[in-house]
Amino acid sequence: MKISINRKAHFNAAHRLHKEGYSDEENLKVFGKCSNPLYHGHNYELIVTVTGEIDPETGFVMNLDILKKIIKDEVEYYLDHKNLNLEVEEFKKLNPTAENISVVIWKRIRAKLNSKYELKVTLFETPRNYVEYWGD
Amino acid sequence: MKISINRKAHFNAAHRLHKEGYSDEENLKVFGKCSNPLYHGHNYELIVTVTGEIDPETGFVMNLDILKKIIKDEVEYYLDHKNLNLEVEEFKKLNPTAENISVVIWKRIRAKLNSKYELKVTLFETPRNYVEYWGD
Amino acid sequence: MKISINRKAHFNAAHRLHKEGYSDEENLKVFGKCSNPLYHGHNYELIVTVTGEIDPETGFVMNLDILKKIIKDEVEYYLDHKNLNLEVEEFKKLNPTAENISVVIWKRIRAKLNSKYELKVTLFETPRNYVEYWGD
Amino acid sequence: MKISINRKAHFNAAHRLHKEGYSDEENLKVFGKCSNPLYHGHNYELIVTVTGEIDPETGFVMNLDILKKIIKDEVEYYLDHKNLNLEVEEFKKLNPTAENISVVIWKRIRAKLNSKYELKVTLFETPRNYVEYWGD
Amino acid sequence: MKISINRKAHFNAAHRLHKEGYSDEENLKVFGKCSNPLYHGHNYELIVTVTGEIDPETGFVMNLDILKKIIKDEVEYYLDHKNLNLEVEEFKKLNPTAENISVVIWKRIRAKLNSKYELKVTLFETPRNYVEYWGD
Amino acid sequence: MKISINRKAHFNAAHRLHKEGYSDEENLKVFGKCSNPLYHGHNYELIVTVTGEIDPETGFVMNLDILKKIIKDEVEYYLDHKNLNLEVEEFKKLNPTAENISVVIWKRIRAKLNSKYELKVTLFETPRNYVEYWGD
Repeated sequence: MKISINRKAHFNAAHRLHKEGYSDEENLKVFGKCSNPLYHGHNYELIVTVTGEIDPETGFVMNLDILKKIIKDEVEYYLDHKNLNLEVEEFKKLNPTAENISVVIWKRIRAKLNSKYELKVTLFETPRNYVEYWGD
Repeated sequence: MKISINRKAHFNAAHRLHKEGYSDEENLKVFGKCSNPLYHGHNYELIVTVTGEIDPETGFVMNLDILKKIIKDEVEYYLDHKNLNLEVEEFKKLNPTAENISVVIWKRIRAKLNSKYELKVTLFETPRNYVEYWGD
Repeated sequence: MKISINRKAHFNAAHRLHKEGYSDEENLKVFGKCSNPLYHGHNYELIVTVTGEIDPETGFVMNLDILKKIIKDEVEYYLDHKNLNLEVEEFKKLNPTAENISVVIWKRIRAKLNSKYELKVTLFETPRNYVEYWGD
Repeated sequence: MKISINRKAHFNAAHRLHKEGYSDEENLKVFGKCSNPLYHGHNYELIVTVTGEIDPETGFVMNLDILKKIIKDEVEYYLDHKNLNLEVEEFKKLNPTAENISVVIWKRIRAKLNSKYELKVTLFETPRNYVEYWGD
Repeated sequence: MKISINRKAHFNAAHRLHKEGYSDEENLKVFGKCSNPLYHGHNYELIVTVTGEIDPETGFVMNLDILKKIIKDEVEYYLDHKNLNLEVEEFKKLNPTAENISVVIWKRIRAKLNSKYELKVTLFETPRNYVEYWGD
Repeated sequence: MKISINRKAHFNAAHRLHKEGYSDEENLKVFGKCSNPLYHGHNYELIVTVTGEIDPETGFVMNLDILKKIIKDEVEYYLDHKNLNLEVEEFKKLNPTAENISVVIWKRIRAKLNSKYELKVTLFETPRNYVEYWGD
């Protein structure tokens, strides 16, 4: 009997989308305004979904305080008010698209989460665009 | 060819989380502020998802008025403005966590819903925490 | 490794629900106020979900500008500010329920989308009622 | 000591914007797609704001059940699932713009509300456009 | 030149509405389901609005960290996960309606806020009911 | 007889808060994480409120297409996907706080809006922080 719990979080960051080796024109063509070399930014809204069985002792899938702490350490502390391209190790060679940011967040939380749980992340780059990733 | 229809509803209730047999200290440690013996409460927002085939006669998966009546009878009338621990049969021995409330709601709706439909419930305990349950 | 991108869009339209061959009384019984022969209407909010692999060149599942253009051509231009029953080819003989509108939108986008992607549409008829369709 | 209470409600309706005496071309120029003679529609979301003093006996500005009944009778019953142009007396000669609908709603509620209260209505025609009217 | 800054916060609490001296029947008649002697509860969402001039040194009306701390101390710490009737001094003799809770919150924040600022509070008892209070 | 129309818009941008002449330590103390010299960013959501009389000819306070074009030219084109500190003239010497951005937006729209209208702007820096400015 599986059930999912979901927790929302958020962080603000600057980024630009571009590909090393592309000319400015090529970057503009592929990434549009998002390729601005001086950066733009977003309020990222995150939903973390953990799926497992209900512990009959507590009635919880997992204690939300533990999940909140993982999100705080692995996402909020790590990404909030950062320049993703310049200050976040994973994006030094990886384009910080919403897709790639979701995968990075998923891996960071996965590494701290008991392996008995399934994990999915949903990342809103804007209120109109979002990405869902549930692992490979 | 499957398709899902979703209907939102809501109810307000008081509850506390605790385990019989735990000391006050143990309850506080596991359930935090939610163990307050004098209760706290929530605006629960519910999404009921019914999956089935489109009836070619009507263009509906099911008549929404029938679904609304089931939700009214089984959820709103049963849980709204109640103290879950003291007034709801199912929680007299079951901790009213969001997970357990979702399972109880799912079972109550399932019992009234034609068995040809699949059922899922999504329950927001707060705008930041929610649970999804799709049956066993 | 699959990942989903989601894009929101919206359109406003008039419709009525009814079945040819039903009497006015039968239509009222099955479709309620939605059978009003003089029409009513909605702000339809749409979420288009495209699932595929991340292109390692760009970090995108697909370029959002391409998806936005498909949505603009196939949904917004086609349905916005229209009377669905009278002006939209597909609904001349098909009841424009949220279920059927979702299927029509899904088929129109599917026809323009590279077949390597999976497609799902979520259509809010009101903030309280919505439909999800992921194809047959 | 003044305080405001607010109550949300909603209704769905069809309408068109046009001016009698204008040619089709003029209507299209002034009202754009909203002039479609076959109608389009909206989910109107309404906020009713009543301002007054707190009754020390109850702690209420006014009993919300009374306000809900006024909204139900004067707005929901009167406008929901209607064609505003064809079925609502006030719009037989008045263009049903969001501005004019707000004034009509304000007048209908005002007529039923104790004169000791101030009244404001906020009407969302779409999630992106809304009107506020507080009387003359 | 005045400008307003707004900050959202939230807390969950149990309460009941009733009047001492009323019979159970009278309480039920005036306060409906909200008079349940075993309590119900809400997710209260709060918006605190501070109006003043922009400090040309910082570009702020006031430092948001200071406002956040006042809200944390005076509202969240004081009301979150509490039974308002039994555990909050102000409501031992005052009916905890949304109106009265707003006034109590306003007074508590006002006492800590520099008198050069104007203060308003907006309190959502549910997503459909809210109160605004800007002082006397 | 005054009435207000409101239109929502949005833009994404990078910025940092700091004061020239302050040391890094002073900037960190006053502006916290927002002083990051490498920038962070936001999805700014804007509400533009125009107050005036209803034109009896059209039923509009003003034609929304005209307002949309002013917002597009003066706000979206000017600020979207920009680094506010480096690329926007007004912020070369002015700290781009939400307060100051609101004043800049107000002035830019005011300059294009017929003087018979009153103007207010509401700017969400995040879903939890927003500013309101109605001119001097």
